Amino acid sequence: MHDVNIPEVHAEVTAAFHRYEAALVSNDVAVLDELFWNEEHTLRFGVTENLFSYAEIAEFRASRPSQGLTRKLLRTVVTTYGRDFATANTTFLRDGSDRVGRQSHSWLRTPEGWRIVAAHVSLLPPGVG
Amino acid sequence: MHDVNIPEVHAEVTAAFHRYEAALVSNDVAVLDELFWNEEHTLRFGVTENLFSYAEIAEFRASRPSQGLTRKLLRTVVTTYGRDFATANTTFLRDGSDRVGRQSHSWLRTPEGWRIVAAHVSLLPPGVG
Repeated sequence: MHDVNIPEVHAEVTAAFHRYEAALVSNDVAVLDELFWNEEHTLRFGVTENLFSYAEIAEFRASRPSQGLTRKLLRTVVTTYGRDFATANTTFLRDGSDRVGRQSHSWLRTPEGWRIVAAHVSLLPPGVG
Repeated sequence: MHDVNIPEVHAEVTAAFHRYEAALVSNDVAVLDELFWNEEHTLRFGVTENLFSYAEIAEFRASRPSQGLTRKLLRTVVTTYGRDFATANTTFLRDGSDRVGRQSHSWLRTPEGWRIVAAHVSLLPPGVG
């Protein structure tokens, strides 16, 4: 059984999570692309789209409007399992929206660093959460 | 670096995924509870709720209506990383709905077997997907 939340591992993934968040709200596509694992297995279910490979994710990033990405994180849980795998989940509110968002990432340690292997982002219905 | 999709590991997780699916559509709460990791770190973002511990998930299962759970899987991707971690993602259509659903699970091998440590379920907006 893998140790959960080894402090230095948890700190690494937390740093990666916040690096992703900073890139997201500033639409730093190079960093967003870097932090997703460059493999056909990688996938991302977004608020309005399902993307089934790194290539599809990168194409989406390149064509995404860069406005309206500002958001406030509400509750974030990073959990690490052993030294090479982690989940990072957060809830958030976008500026100008009253719908609570949820972002789930699965992270893998690769030779190049921590990378997101699966992502899911969605909004709760209005008035919930 | 961990080997991706070692055949026997992939088969194990695929079996666990289908066991979960069968329990879900038949509302077999005992199996649903069994397959979530019994830890405070475990979380589940559902279509209309955010649940931040195994206890919250189990409470939700116990009180959930057992009707209307039938669904058809559209596209399922199970990916394993080494021997102890996996992601399982699927899209689905519920009976009577035209909104495409997405389900993301992160699985961990524990001494008791494969367990879901993080889950996220949501629906695309009407007319998308």
